[in-house]
Amino acid sequence: MFESAELGHTIDKRTYDREEPGLRAALLDAQFELAQAGKFPVLILIGGVDGAGKGETVNLVNEWMDPRHIQTRAFGEASDEESERPTMWRFWRELPPRGKIGIMFGSWYTAPIVDRVMGQTDDEDLQQSLDRIVRFERMLHDEGALLLKFWFHLGKKQQKKRLQELEKDPRTRWRVTKLDWQRFKIYDRFREVSAHALRETGTADAPWTVVEGLDQRYRSLTVGKVLLEAMRERLAAQNSKPASVKAPPLPKIDNLGLLRHLDLTQKLARPKYKKELEKWQGRLNLLSREKKYFRKRSLVLVFEGSDAAGKGGAIRRITGAIDARHYQIIPVAAPTEEERAQPYLWRFWRRAPRRGRITIFDRSWYGRVLVERVEGFCDVSNWMRAYSEINDFEEQLVDNGAIVCKFWLQTSRAEQLKRFQLREQTSFKHFKITEEDWRNRKKWNAYEQAVCDMIDRTSTEIAPWFVIEAEDKYFGRIKILRTIVEQMGKVL
Amino acid sequence: MFESAELGHTIDKRTYDREEPGLRAALLDAQFELAQAGKFPVLILIGGVDGAGKGETVNLVNEWMDPRHIQTRAFGEASDEESERPTMWRFWRELPPRGKIGIMFGSWYTAPIVDRVMGQTDDEDLQQSLDRIVRFERMLHDEGALLLKFWFHLGKKQQKKRLQELEKDPRTRWRVTKLDWQRFKIYDRFREVSAHALRETGTADAPWTVVEGLDQRYRSLTVGKVLLEAMRERLAAQNSKPASVKAPPLPKIDNLGLLRHLDLTQKLARPKYKKELEKWQGRLNLLSREKKYFRKRSLVLVFEGSDAAGKGGAIRRITGAIDARHYQIIPVAAPTEEERAQPYLWRFWRRAPRRGRITIFDRSWYGRVLVERVEGFCDVSNWMRAYSEINDFEEQLVDNGAIVCKFWLQTSRAEQLKRFQLREQTSFKHFKITEEDWRNRKKWNAYEQAVCDMIDRTSTEIAPWFVIEAEDKYFGRIKILRTIVEQMGKVL
Repeated sequence: MFESAELGHTIDKRTYDREEPGLRAALLDAQFELAQAGKFPVLILIGGVDGAGKGETVNLVNEWMDPRHIQTRAFGEASDEESERPTMWRFWRELPPRGKIGIMFGSWYTAPIVDRVMGQTDDEDLQQSLDRIVRFERMLHDEGALLLKFWFHLGKKQQKKRLQELEKDPRTRWRVTKLDWQRFKIYDRFREVSAHALRETGTADAPWTVVEGLDQRYRSLTVGKVLLEAMRERLAAQNSKPASVKAPPLPKIDNLGLLRHLDLTQKLARPKYKKELEKWQGRLNLLSREKKYFRKRSLVLVFEGSDAAGKGGAIRRITGAIDARHYQIIPVAAPTEEERAQPYLWRFWRRAPRRGRITIFDRSWYGRVLVERVEGFCDVSNWMRAYSEINDFEEQLVDNGAIVCKFWLQTSRAEQLKRFQLREQTSFKHFKITEEDWRNRKKWNAYEQAVCDMIDRTSTEIAPWFVIEAEDKYFGRIKILRTIVEQMGKVL
Repeated sequence: MFESAELGHTIDKRTYDREEPGLRAALLDAQFELAQAGKFPVLILIGGVDGAGKGETVNLVNEWMDPRHIQTRAFGEASDEESERPTMWRFWRELPPRGKIGIMFGSWYTAPIVDRVMGQTDDEDLQQSLDRIVRFERMLHDEGALLLKFWFHLGKKQQKKRLQELEKDPRTRWRVTKLDWQRFKIYDRFREVSAHALRETGTADAPWTVVEGLDQRYRSLTVGKVLLEAMRERLAAQNSKPASVKAPPLPKIDNLGLLRHLDLTQKLARPKYKKELEKWQGRLNLLSREKKYFRKRSLVLVFEGSDAAGKGGAIRRITGAIDARHYQIIPVAAPTEEERAQPYLWRFWRRAPRRGRITIFDRSWYGRVLVERVEGFCDVSNWMRAYSEINDFEEQLVDNGAIVCKFWLQTSRAEQLKRFQLREQTSFKHFKITEEDWRNRKKWNAYEQAVCDMIDRTSTEIAPWFVIEAEDKYFGRIKILRTIVEQMGKVL
């Protein structure tokens, strides 16, 4: 991995001075074009050994280009808001929007590599982390990001020499800390683990560039040229029409019976409902107040269902049982401008609850494989990849302590019609039925197919789907409350 | 203040049962109308003594209305991200957008009152905090927010009884902590200080409603009715055209000489510039790395100036001297959708730097009193009030440790023309001159007037304006760098 980065590459001053001005102007042009088009973000990851010129190079890139459209972020220790959420949250929140360049120091590679070097994790843990990274980066690529990863390398002797040099010069002495020397002691192990990590994560979509860090001119030109080449290529590609993406055929593993064979006749009489409601609300209240256990956890509830299936009513029976200070309801509608400039899941990531909190999604990230699929709002390839991206997202929530329950509320088509008509008649204007509701209704079968595919592909042991017979509202609400209590009871 | 809230108000069950359904339906209607119109936010502050039913009432409001459009936030201890920024930052970030209802438990009143009760501050500190609150709430009101403040009160004996009752019941025992009893011991002092605070901050724009907390039915109906009444009134008012706001005449304190008598002939020859640049960049670099001192501080740089005055070039000479990991540049353009749903200053508050960091604004909050004023994008009354709102904002930044330097870059009109023409000729497409630039140029005199007013009204000892003679780029850049170094040097 690092062999060719230990050869002692250098570039003489004359060559550098000849090449630098042109490179600089070209980079500025490319950056301008990127901002004008606003079609994709450029994300640059910076990793590697200490003293190999990471900081200098980033400063140089900022100097060469227009720093107003570059966001440079260094990831040191996590803040408390960050450490109470899934590990990737802090990176998601700093992703550059389309049209911008983001530079990350100390990215998602730092923890997996360092933890393995220090023996806090084993090979299997490392492998799992790297697999996740590959999937995450593939998602970024699929969402349009141009991802460039630079690893700054120095041979062992070179690093030692470099640290000593920095220490000698009074102007740079501050940069060498005890920690740097401690890290130097484990150089070999660090080299070994990072070589493995780079090998496993260097994909066609997100290749690594290993940069020998010895010579300032060499590393600057290398980074500048790689960056320029990649940006130019991407900018040119965006102007040529992409070949229409052929969708992989959807294997017929769907199980329509799932919805069609539901027993929608199940009912609960009002007196019985009242009693059950009190019972399950009481239990939910107790569980959500379990300071000792729940504060290390969080609860994520997802509500999906056809129009008028009773999502709102069910949510109110849940919030009626818990303290308003502890929950947050996210009604999901069209994404905002800032959200549209980011990968699809960004707007849900930003809502990931801290520990001890409850977040209720009224519609959710499943919009992509439901309405967006059925209405043709996104390419087949985009909603097809969403299944696994969603599974990854939920896995990370669960790893961080979240209890994730997903509900699909199902009524019969006839019952929906009845509710639509009732809503049209009532004067309660907040139950308006729109043209769109009627249009959606016509696509009942397509939605049914989409729902079944969704459940087949995203109902996992860690984040299961619960299909709720919602023909009778009382029955549906109690089943939901009971399910939440049971799921919480399993882990608390 | 609290006399009438110690009378033992109660409402009998029959009256309550008769009134509640209508109130509930009406509240839901009002909420729906609020969401549909999306014109203003409703912000409800909840304060008062323990055991007076604050939590219950908030839960009830969430039950009565649609909780999906209410965001309830409790402010306990500040997170580290919050405590490294000005005190009000955590409240700004949780302001509800237009069309939504926000409920805040433990608002900006908590700290000033509690600190005074505990003797950590004196009367003068308290008064200063309350004055600031009044100005902040006036701003919210002027920005269109409907602000409702509820104070839940209990007489001393009543509170004791209430805490004892809660303790006796196994279902509510958990709610009474040692802290509650400790607080009860200082009841009298708390009553005194909060009465003072309420008196000082109960304005026409943001009145207090003191609610006796003894009787659940009484307090619920009180809050429900006050909320409904206020929302209805506001919703009705938004439909009637507001009387055109008469602008207060602008007192002629402006000092056009400020700009006209600048000595724009000042120049720096290139060799001298190179030397000076190295010197001041070096000093700036050292100061920004002063871990011991600077990490308790932050640096906020504001750049304003007419088109082509050289803001971008000046900024690059600054960033060239500091580590990319420590600064952030905010190029200010049109606000995003999420920003437009909030008070004007919200989009700048969200960028307030943490301690130890540098934020550079390329154009800024001064847009309101420059371009928005000159182009007539906002009412006279709106830009008139912006001066003091901006002063308040900057004062809070400084109180939190920020060093704030504001630069106005001035060239002659002839020099601007020269630069425009030069830009039109060069092939560098990132220096495009737009129609708008030419239009702005025609309004030179109006801008000049606006700039002078701005400097007169917002150049304070704590956040001074520095007018930069930018006719000669070298001269301007060095003056800016030197000024920053000098300002930092004063406090570090």
